[in-house]
Amino acid sequence: MDTVPLKLVTIIAEAVLEDRLLRELRELGARGYSVGAVEGQGSRGVRAVDFEGKNSRIEVIASEEVTDRILEHVAQTYFQHYAVIAYVSDVAVVRGDKYV
Amino acid sequence: MDTVPLKLVTIIAEAVLEDRLLRELRELGARGYSVGAVEGQGSRGVRAVDFEGKNSRIEVIASEEVTDRILEHVAQTYFQHYAVIAYVSDVAVVRGDKYV
Amino acid sequence: MDTVPLKLVTIIAEAVLEDRLLRELRELGARGYSVGAVEGQGSRGVRAVDFEGKNSRIEVIASEEVTDRILEHVAQTYFQHYAVIAYVSDVAVVRGDKYV
Repeated sequence: MDTVPLKLVTIIAEAVLEDRLLRELRELGARGYSVGAVEGQGSRGVRAVDFEGKNSRIEVIASEEVTDRILEHVAQTYFQHYAVIAYVSDVAVVRGDKYV
Repeated sequence: MDTVPLKLVTIIAEAVLEDRLLRELRELGARGYSVGAVEGQGSRGVRAVDFEGKNSRIEVIASEEVTDRILEHVAQTYFQHYAVIAYVSDVAVVRGDKYV
Repeated sequence: MDTVPLKLVTIIAEAVLEDRLLRELRELGARGYSVGAVEGQGSRGVRAVDFEGKNSRIEVIASEEVTDRILEHVAQTYFQHYAVIAYVSDVAVVRGDKYV
């Protein structure tokens, strides 16, 4: 089966940020995402308590270039004031040319 | 901890396809799956609009052989008419011999 | 973008075990987790039937050391009597120093 090596970016953030994040992700070049509801607790630290409760778990399949842009944006825009988690893994995507 | 290197196949499809997909995955040799509800938007293209809304996110742990069979089946059966996303990542599975 | 290579541990277990598991994960050193609801079916075997139904999908970002501790604990505590699934993948985490 032909697959394309791409990045899977997972962002976990307060549900109230979801619409704004999805709009920004599209503007940064993301195509194809899914959003699920999770409950979570962030890393230790002053904001951990605020992070408990309803969060959105956003998954985006993207090229390495778009992934870098997304991570930069999320770090610069949200990490100071929001308990956002962002991580990346390698995936092999069927029909992956649609995501780049 | 002893783990077995296996594949994690994630399939995101319209919720209406879920029962059929799970039955087919079992027939293709999948053991052990989980299904969550997500909202999503597919890659750009004519069917992107149809894909917004309630989707099922199906995860299957499988051998490389079963994974290939699943991807072939999903690509041949669904990609022309449905906005299905399928991707694979490497996982180390505890008690992984149960999945092959 | 600076990221830290860490492990993403995914544990899928009966929802009734969730509170206990999360408490144990914290005691084992986990920081930052998210929990989603999934439906699932375990690997073939005598307990597969019991496993159908509502499950919790717990994701934890952790160091390799904490990951090993979590997998050992889950295997020793739950695998004999519960249909728990546990697997690990490699992730690159933004602001990952918060999780070790």
